[in-house]
Amino acid sequence: MIAILSGGVGAARFAAGVTQIMEPSEVTIISNVGDDEVMHGLHISPDIDTVIYTLGNAINPETGWGLKDETWRVMEALGDYGGETWFRLGDKDLATHMFRTHMLASGKSLTKITELIRQRWGVEVNVLPATNDRLRTKLYAEIDGREQELSFQEYFVRHAHEPEIKRIVYENSSSALPTREVTRAIETAELIIVAPSNPLLSIAPILSIAPIAESLKTRRDRIVAISPIIAGAAVKGPAAKLMKELGFMPSALGVAQFYRDFISAIVIDEKDADLKDQISALNIEVLTTNTLMTDPVVSAQLAQQVLKLKKVK
Amino acid sequence: MIAILSGGVGAARFAAGVTQIMEPSEVTIISNVGDDEVMHGLHISPDIDTVIYTLGNAINPETGWGLKDETWRVMEALGDYGGETWFRLGDKDLATHMFRTHMLASGKSLTKITELIRQRWGVEVNVLPATNDRLRTKLYAEIDGREQELSFQEYFVRHAHEPEIKRIVYENSSSALPTREVTRAIETAELIIVAPSNPLLSIAPILSIAPIAESLKTRRDRIVAISPIIAGAAVKGPAAKLMKELGFMPSALGVAQFYRDFISAIVIDEKDADLKDQISALNIEVLTTNTLMTDPVVSAQLAQQVLKLKKVK
Repeated sequence: MIAILSGGVGAARFAAGVTQIMEPSEVTIISNVGDDEVMHGLHISPDIDTVIYTLGNAINPETGWGLKDETWRVMEALGDYGGETWFRLGDKDLATHMFRTHMLASGKSLTKITELIRQRWGVEVNVLPATNDRLRTKLYAEIDGREQELSFQEYFVRHAHEPEIKRIVYENSSSALPTREVTRAIETAELIIVAPSNPLLSIAPILSIAPIAESLKTRRDRIVAISPIIAGAAVKGPAAKLMKELGFMPSALGVAQFYRDFISAIVIDEKDADLKDQISALNIEVLTTNTLMTDPVVSAQLAQQVLKLKKVK
Repeated sequence: MIAILSGGVGAARFAAGVTQIMEPSEVTIISNVGDDEVMHGLHISPDIDTVIYTLGNAINPETGWGLKDETWRVMEALGDYGGETWFRLGDKDLATHMFRTHMLASGKSLTKITELIRQRWGVEVNVLPATNDRLRTKLYAEIDGREQELSFQEYFVRHAHEPEIKRIVYENSSSALPTREVTRAIETAELIIVAPSNPLLSIAPILSIAPIAESLKTRRDRIVAISPIIAGAAVKGPAAKLMKELGFMPSALGVAQFYRDFISAIVIDEKDADLKDQISALNIEVLTTNTLMTDPVVSAQLAQQVLKLKKVK
């Protein structure tokens, strides 16, 4: 069994590659929940849904999030109220959030609900929220001259990740606990892969749960990260910009430094081959390859190389 | 200004008649909220919405509830999850509930939100929830040999008002308070009409708020009810059956007895003319006319007669 620490789009595409070379039932995704949010009363888990929709071959291929063949009747009607429509929720997608919210209210855990949702989409990969507890990524930015707290979605979607961020807090991380399933996956995985997701917004919320960070350190020799940053820029989203704003080097080297306590290897893009020596000096093995997942074939090749690096299969 | 104590469909049709003979801005609806319910995380106010959609000429004329030209994308997708779909929520209708839920979460009162919703539908009639507090009608039935508590919607929709009801509780009625707006409407209305709604399920929850019941008694000479029961049967729904189950006479006479403390007149159908003397004996003036609101013309005529009875206009 292999485990993947996962954010949204990048992780989902990588996981889709993995399932082309491994039995899906042997793959476990440990998903970020820091960008979960209650909107209009509905509990939305964007990273979990992006992974499930992608693996269920139901994702909108143009956006990388949301469902294909989607309609927008509810959003249009909400717009007629002058309601909040900056976070676009498609009609079919809304059913996912209503189902999740109803099940949470009836006492089911997010882990159990996520299992029901992935089964509905025919996804055999085990998708696990990092925690069943409430964990929220809050970003602090100076907007219009004063500090404002933004939820992940407010930052990412509403403000199109433009504000300069001063600090990030993973709210409730000190009391949030990993689920039994996540703990077991970390302890028993033959290989743990840190997906090419945003280190500060997708992976750090998972790491902010202390027991997860601790147990990852004990598995260092079996953990490989894939850099989401290529030639100093993020493939998608604000990873590089945000790392810079918060004092990290916006490069594959910065990513390696951020993860150095618990990874023993990193896959970086061939464009970053010049960083190899500096990363190796951190006692991290480096593999350079094409990491830009432009299509499923590249994703599968990338996955194949990561597995080979740690001699899995 | 006239005020109407209101349930759902019957009251909405009557109110639509009233607005044909009076300035809508001179009409205030005091709406039942006992059948409000949180479903899938969304706060649903069925009676308020039925009244607003009807007055906004947006109601589905076939069902008497929900919006016309509605689609069902979300419900279909929820069905694919095996989710709870017995309470049908159309796509456009869902936006109303999402808007309401979001506004409640942001601290607005149900009264203020109802105003925003009616404005969006161009409704000039003032629609007021009886209370901003949580008030819920709970019905107790014996199902499969044991007593079960049902919310209004579970009883009415899920079980199609078939179970025999042993008792009804208006949960939280002892602490719920009328809004300032409702109190003022009752105190100042030139005429208060009890709409032809279910006495036990639509009107009684409003009356269960003690300050409302008390202040209605002081206005008895200005209050007229319209019987929802014609020839021993409800025009729609379980009013007659339920009255019988709970020990009330399932007739216009039973309705008059139920309201006798605070009404000085009642409009009953001409089919019930034989009950006139018995009702008069309760010190309640009786008007017999055609009360079956088969179309807006009949609703308007009925409204006209109610106003004439108390010499309004």
